[in-house]
Amino acid sequence: MIRHGGNIYETQRNRGIPTDELIDFSANINPLGMAPALKDALADSFEAILHYPDIEYFNLKQSIASVYGIAPEFIFPGNGAGELIFRYFRVLRPKKVLIVAPTFSEYEQAIRLAGGEVEYFQLQEDADFNLDIAALKLRLADGFDVLVLCNPNNPTGSFLPLSQLGEIVESSQHYGMQVMVDESFIDFVCEAPQQSAVQLLSENVFVVKSLTKFYAIPGLRLGFAVSFNTDVNELLNYTREPWNINALAAMAGEIILHQTDYIRESIRYVDAERVRFVEDLKKIDGLTVYPSSVNFLLLRLDERFDLCDMSEKLLQKKFLIRNASNFEFLDSRYFRIAVRKREENILLTQALKEYLVIDK
Amino acid sequence: MIRHGGNIYETQRNRGIPTDELIDFSANINPLGMAPALKDALADSFEAILHYPDIEYFNLKQSIASVYGIAPEFIFPGNGAGELIFRYFRVLRPKKVLIVAPTFSEYEQAIRLAGGEVEYFQLQEDADFNLDIAALKLRLADGFDVLVLCNPNNPTGSFLPLSQLGEIVESSQHYGMQVMVDESFIDFVCEAPQQSAVQLLSENVFVVKSLTKFYAIPGLRLGFAVSFNTDVNELLNYTREPWNINALAAMAGEIILHQTDYIRESIRYVDAERVRFVEDLKKIDGLTVYPSSVNFLLLRLDERFDLCDMSEKLLQKKFLIRNASNFEFLDSRYFRIAVRKREENILLTQALKEYLVIDK
Repeated sequence: MIRHGGNIYETQRNRGIPTDELIDFSANINPLGMAPALKDALADSFEAILHYPDIEYFNLKQSIASVYGIAPEFIFPGNGAGELIFRYFRVLRPKKVLIVAPTFSEYEQAIRLAGGEVEYFQLQEDADFNLDIAALKLRLADGFDVLVLCNPNNPTGSFLPLSQLGEIVESSQHYGMQVMVDESFIDFVCEAPQQSAVQLLSENVFVVKSLTKFYAIPGLRLGFAVSFNTDVNELLNYTREPWNINALAAMAGEIILHQTDYIRESIRYVDAERVRFVEDLKKIDGLTVYPSSVNFLLLRLDERFDLCDMSEKLLQKKFLIRNASNFEFLDSRYFRIAVRKREENILLTQALKEYLVIDK
Repeated sequence: MIRHGGNIYETQRNRGIPTDELIDFSANINPLGMAPALKDALADSFEAILHYPDIEYFNLKQSIASVYGIAPEFIFPGNGAGELIFRYFRVLRPKKVLIVAPTFSEYEQAIRLAGGEVEYFQLQEDADFNLDIAALKLRLADGFDVLVLCNPNNPTGSFLPLSQLGEIVESSQHYGMQVMVDESFIDFVCEAPQQSAVQLLSENVFVVKSLTKFYAIPGLRLGFAVSFNTDVNELLNYTREPWNINALAAMAGEIILHQTDYIRESIRYVDAERVRFVEDLKKIDGLTVYPSSVNFLLLRLDERFDLCDMSEKLLQKKFLIRNASNFEFLDSRYFRIAVRKREENILLTQALKEYLVIDK
């Protein structure tokens, strides 16, 4: 089963295509790669590997805290955002959780592992998967322990501005619910902490985010959560496993958030490139492209084509795309592609055109 | 509170001694450092960081499986041994666990987090902390769900040969108990899989081990477990968080276990150096040195001296040692030191001599 994008190793094993030859559009990683300062630091990283990481992750917390303008005690670094999502639900043990979907599948896995029950609030395709806030507020009255929102949302790319998020948080407070906001892709929208739910500073908000996408370090595993709920925080600290983050990821976290030039250039590049990419893709007959605010696009293939066949043909040209049919409410017509470098995006556009014109 | 050794970052923060100036005898890391082949691979590791790790860790499991001569399905790589210890108890949810102690404190933390109760079986100081197998077998009759053994044991350095371990496992089987054996330091005793509990191939044995000590990669976080219990294994797979191991650690794991020359030279070096180090230390009046099979030594300071004061004086000379008073059954007279390079061990011996002679 396809659970996640970016599995270039499985493609190598099953299809014999070397990982360094694949053009991976299935994982959503910053096309500019790592920040130069991080590359330099990593090149000289043997020392960091030879020692245990700082078990308190003092500098890492300070680094994040300074960017978000909050105290380090509210910050919880993790071995990827995933570790924090699993830990959050493990300590919260919610009975019933509402997830806005289609979205990232790990929320459900984490909730079920913690013994919780999941319901979905469906984003409508005919509204370009934008959230209907009024309808969501009505649904909240049904009684949930937690509301889960991915913002910007994976795989739709839709983004909810802070003011609207604030409305939802307020409504959730009214019902005594927690709100988990996953901001793993928000850095592609704006510089931190702009638009971040961290600014809502509320006891019922848990913000989690991965640093591996924007900063192009998926192999290192790094994420963090921000929580102002003292009860939750005590449990998060109590259940943390020692040295949960490796030393290179911790070192990276101390560097990357301060690379202002790299951050601005990445936002600018991805933004401009997404606009061009979408324009090109929209010209292809047989594809629907949904609006996106980030570094990936959700697309729908017309019924007269077969996504598996198309994926196969693209793979023969070394392009890996993400079949999105395992996302709740999506089916085998949907796929997701990353916004990569200009040249690569042009090549994929070309390959899609060829396939859809020839096979028509 | 001192929970673990190797916290050079805290020492830097609190005492202003730069981490690269400290001579860290408090963490138990291979004094020969990393395998040369691993250094080469890491120097060219940017590519590995830019991709998600293989979510199945296929090559890593294969690599471990081939060394231990078992199928990959029985192998569970982890973000350090710690992650596996916590996950094991989380899926097992034991009511009552017997831990042979003094030993590593994380077992108790993991068991309590999983809602279990802990009892201790005390290793006797007057038997040099060697395990009294007959007495342990009697104790097993009291009814426990799991027995936890660290072998070789941290912090005592004592080692139980496979034949004796087999006796204990048999007795545990009789009582329907699980046995968890932590072999994080066994590679210093012999080449894998010699002497490993993996060879007992039993449904009631769970073997866990860290690869960070022998292979000198504590900053990378890497460990694995071997389990032949199908029920436990299903739950271990079900509860694994995606990408639990970073890409560099996975890459390291594929390389290091096959560095036979490095492995033999490390065993030989540490073995010879420990013998010399112990001989030198035994000549110092005021110290008791306990026999050890591995790369660290447990020592006891005579009552007429003060361990905190001694640690402080050693730190002024940049030596960091591990106060062992937080280990169950040990008190403020006990400390642990790693076997480091010959030159460094001589320097520490000298510093200890100076302190104990001057302060007498």
